Amino acid sequence: MENIITSKDNPIIKLYQRLSSSKKGRLQYGLFVLEGLRLVEDAIKEEAAIEHILVTEGCQDKYADTLSQADLRNTKVIVISNELGKRISSTENTQGLFAVCHTPQAVKPESIFCDGGRYAVLYGLQDPGNVGMIIRTADALGIDGVISCQSCEIYNPKVVRSTMGSLFRMKIIVENDTDALFEMLENCGVASLASVIDTDAQPVTSLESRSRMAVFIGNEGNGLPHEVSARCTVRTTIPMTGTINSLNAAMAAGILMWEIRKI
Amino acid sequence: MENIITSKDNPIIKLYQRLSSSKKGRLQYGLFVLEGLRLVEDAIKEEAAIEHILVTEGCQDKYADTLSQADLRNTKVIVISNELGKRISSTENTQGLFAVCHTPQAVKPESIFCDGGRYAVLYGLQDPGNVGMIIRTADALGIDGVISCQSCEIYNPKVVRSTMGSLFRMKIIVENDTDALFEMLENCGVASLASVIDTDAQPVTSLESRSRMAVFIGNEGNGLPHEVSARCTVRTTIPMTGTINSLNAAMAAGILMWEIRKI
Repeated sequence: MENIITSKDNPIIKLYQRLSSSKKGRLQYGLFVLEGLRLVEDAIKEEAAIEHILVTEGCQDKYADTLSQADLRNTKVIVISNELGKRISSTENTQGLFAVCHTPQAVKPESIFCDGGRYAVLYGLQDPGNVGMIIRTADALGIDGVISCQSCEIYNPKVVRSTMGSLFRMKIIVENDTDALFEMLENCGVASLASVIDTDAQPVTSLESRSRMAVFIGNEGNGLPHEVSARCTVRTTIPMTGTINSLNAAMAAGILMWEIRKI
Repeated sequence: MENIITSKDNPIIKLYQRLSSSKKGRLQYGLFVLEGLRLVEDAIKEEAAIEHILVTEGCQDKYADTLSQADLRNTKVIVISNELGKRISSTENTQGLFAVCHTPQAVKPESIFCDGGRYAVLYGLQDPGNVGMIIRTADALGIDGVISCQSCEIYNPKVVRSTMGSLFRMKIIVENDTDALFEMLENCGVASLASVIDTDAQPVTSLESRSRMAVFIGNEGNGLPHEVSARCTVRTTIPMTGTINSLNAAMAAGILMWEIRKI
């Protein structure tokens, strides 16, 4: 029993809580947290850099297979009391399984921009659920990379959860400087496609070229700032035939990525 | 000041709370609740059957325009204390504006099934955010009607919120009996399109006909039950070229509705 952490003041518990609640903490340590069987399994399968896994005393047997996979990779597994599991969980009914991971090294632009590549730029998105859902959809539709600019932090636990493991697979660049973002795209010969709600923009269904192209998705409430859409190579729109002219940002991103995907 | 409700035991407050928290309550009274300026304005604009509007004392002036619109329609406006506004709100920072609405009369199948119509069937969806997002997307893409079968209740406040007002515009039929659902579609000459994750299903991009067709979206975790997809006219799939073969249910529904929409 001496190996089970039971104190809420244990540094491992305090670290988990700080990483879970604080962007500053995640930046400071270069670590982020995961919760739940599905995400922890994905992290192991995708060979993410796991610092350690936490499992509650009551759940050790249930996750024996997963924990032995972790063990094969020399990943440290730490047992905590069921009470601490409840304490650090961000869900009402915790699955009792957690991990602390290292944030990956920054992806180099050269490594994601390829011939015929398709990209999504998240510009000023603030809802973690939207950001996560876009990363997951990009992964499913074969988008070659995601670039985050002035959007919510991708290691926010809510983003991590809603990517459903795609965070470990998708190549993601964070570039919060707008000038540097456009410079990077231009240097790599990638056209920029501003998505706007504007009847004089080109319908996404009639774009001439769809390759080596990055589609810009704007903020949930305000869309793309005018000065950003004006700098893009092409302005495009999703033709809507219904009674409203508005889609959720993640849904708009999904339809745009679907239209520019490789077929 | 005598007209301001200040007691948490006032029947109007108790009714709001019951409608907000209980599906049984909503069914019993045939009423549901809205919160926030955007939704209340949509309800007024779309001529929803509003039982009454609640506004907090501190917000009366801010919403004077909206309240005078309500007044023109002879909608009763009731002022409540700021404290009660916080109490009944489902958000952290309430906007101080609420409404109680009558659930609409059941939509008759004949009134939604039209020549060339396109429909979405929500079969066993359980996440209110997904259901709301699909209704909103259906509205934007010009889908002619949504049929809910064994899915979460459409007057759940989380569904109402995420429809962003489309609940008042979209024609929605609730039919929880699977046999009756298929009978209704057959009687109205509407083909059923099962969306499945299965490489031998027909890619949605190569469907021969896209009109007079209802696309079935299945449960978030389990998809459509086999016995339901087997009864459908066609089995279709979203071709995915990425590293995972899974989309969020609302995202899959959005791409499918986009593909079968009228152009």
